[in-house]
Amino acid sequence: MKADKAGSRSKFLSVFPDLVDETIEVLKSYGMPQDAIQWFKQNLDYNTPSGKLNRGLSVVDTYGILKGYQTVEDIPVEEYKRAAVLGWCIELLQAYFLVADDMMDQSITRRGSPCWYKVEGVKEIAINDAFMLEGAIYILLKKYFSNESYYVKLMGIFHDVTFKTECGQLLDLITAPEDSVDLNKFSLDKQMFIITYKTAFYSFYLPVALAMFMTGIDNEKDLSQAREVLIPLGQYFQIQDDYLDCFGKPEDIGKIGTDIQDNKCSWVVNTALNVCTPEQRKVLDENYGRKDAVKEKKCKDLFYALKIDDLYHQYEENEVAILKEKIARVDETRGFKGEVLTAFLSKIYKRKK
Amino acid sequence: MKADKAGSRSKFLSVFPDLVDETIEVLKSYGMPQDAIQWFKQNLDYNTPSGKLNRGLSVVDTYGILKGYQTVEDIPVEEYKRAAVLGWCIELLQAYFLVADDMMDQSITRRGSPCWYKVEGVKEIAINDAFMLEGAIYILLKKYFSNESYYVKLMGIFHDVTFKTECGQLLDLITAPEDSVDLNKFSLDKQMFIITYKTAFYSFYLPVALAMFMTGIDNEKDLSQAREVLIPLGQYFQIQDDYLDCFGKPEDIGKIGTDIQDNKCSWVVNTALNVCTPEQRKVLDENYGRKDAVKEKKCKDLFYALKIDDLYHQYEENEVAILKEKIARVDETRGFKGEVLTAFLSKIYKRKK
Repeated sequence: MKADKAGSRSKFLSVFPDLVDETIEVLKSYGMPQDAIQWFKQNLDYNTPSGKLNRGLSVVDTYGILKGYQTVEDIPVEEYKRAAVLGWCIELLQAYFLVADDMMDQSITRRGSPCWYKVEGVKEIAINDAFMLEGAIYILLKKYFSNESYYVKLMGIFHDVTFKTECGQLLDLITAPEDSVDLNKFSLDKQMFIITYKTAFYSFYLPVALAMFMTGIDNEKDLSQAREVLIPLGQYFQIQDDYLDCFGKPEDIGKIGTDIQDNKCSWVVNTALNVCTPEQRKVLDENYGRKDAVKEKKCKDLFYALKIDDLYHQYEENEVAILKEKIARVDETRGFKGEVLTAFLSKIYKRKK
Repeated sequence: MKADKAGSRSKFLSVFPDLVDETIEVLKSYGMPQDAIQWFKQNLDYNTPSGKLNRGLSVVDTYGILKGYQTVEDIPVEEYKRAAVLGWCIELLQAYFLVADDMMDQSITRRGSPCWYKVEGVKEIAINDAFMLEGAIYILLKKYFSNESYYVKLMGIFHDVTFKTECGQLLDLITAPEDSVDLNKFSLDKQMFIITYKTAFYSFYLPVALAMFMTGIDNEKDLSQAREVLIPLGQYFQIQDDYLDCFGKPEDIGKIGTDIQDNKCSWVVNTALNVCTPEQRKVLDENYGRKDAVKEKKCKDLFYALKIDDLYHQYEENEVAILKEKIARVDETRGFKGEVLTAFLSKIYKRKK
């Protein structure tokens, strides 16, 4: 399917205000006072459409590919709307996670604006607001899909992926707390669990699975074919993210990496831990995860000395070759298409930001 | 159905450890590291079975009444287990709310122990832990009910009631923040919305509706009959709670009321606002919601002067008469039983704690 990125995005965005109104209708039907309705509307508007929307757009793109439409414009209005609703449900899930993550990490800004809990008057109410963002998912699913045979599957996968993401987040929180560094807790296995559960399922597998349910191309064999590429692809994406945080140029990635100072359980430090000498390990133990630019520099110098960037490029080439082979072997006899997976891979391979 | 309160409770409690094990099996199947599994187990054990379990027990009791069993002991093992699973799902929902509420209210203790977020090492991780308590509900529903015709109804009512409760909590949080008193925001209408949505749906209607789904006695007319008694009953319960907080004897209610100092949007203050003179209003504006025993005393004296306790007793007698009449008129032709509702009412009427 041909891509017109800006056009796709603005079309997708144009659906959102209606979904806000429809969700708010539910509160009105309860007789909820106006100030609370207004609060919920601001919660939805502030937290949901402010990101890159990659996950939401992927639902629409995947739907278009599976149905054989040439461009997003060719998708009939009603079908587009429903695919976009599922896309927005993932964006709501993301909003729910991020509002909470920012509180747990005590972050200050998100996407260039204050984190929701840092907005005047919000504070701890943000916890309940996060809950309500999640609640909006099931309101929309019910409104648009409760008469469909795949309604139970939609609820089931949202429950399943939400819980998996929370499991990944839990392991991340107890393995790499910002205020107590213990590299003995780190390992590549734990890092792999964290990125798989915290990111890969909801960011990569979920958009494709939702589009598959909607098209009816959802034989367990095909869901499995999707998963077997999308989960490693999601892992690769996150490992690339870790690599770019350390080795990317700030002018390319549009930010200055903070993983070292933030004590992140990243692929870079875990790989370093695997290949370093006892002396180098001592350097990491004494300098990693501290809010101190000099200590950060010592870690970064060590990562360069250990040639973690070379190890990354080896990992990347190897992983991409495996993924391409898997995609080439996709069984399309039941209607699933390898093109769905290629579309994801091509967005990620060798990205600089 | 005859009640053996202590016996019912210990039987219900005996189901919980298995449900913990079964939920943890899911994490094990993910390959989650042991320290994270242990954390989740402690989250479940610390937060779920430590309360009075009234909501969970109500599911089993209602199920027994609807099926015509004489005592809880007469319910066949498998049926008991499944009714108890639904009961525990409500207790998990309650745990999810309370872990979060305690953070939002910055409470110190809950049920005589430190709030979960106050336990050594937990802090903000409690937000994700709350999410996972909610997630456990859908794991158990799937395991025990995914082959049942009423599975969609179970998920639907949990989504619906969870969202309603969050709406009530939102209005409560923005109407009665502890750190900024504005009695202009209060009204009996808002107070009624808050208690209906924040408490009545999940504490009174949900247990009965779940048991009704399980027995198949779930015609919309019967759900409506249940709701029309249980929602006012839940309102009455909460208004009684507000009354006892101010007028109950500490030796009866087992605690010292804190609603006045906590700026609670309670029935007592809202009723006082409706009947007070402008001078008395000034006393409330200047003294309500302050962490100050002298100011608290001034409010309490005013509530006695306004005879809010008499107004409460009028409300109670009137409300109970209406409820009894509604129960007497219950249409039992489709299998629903007024006894279900009487069982609730008799636990609440004229309670002292």
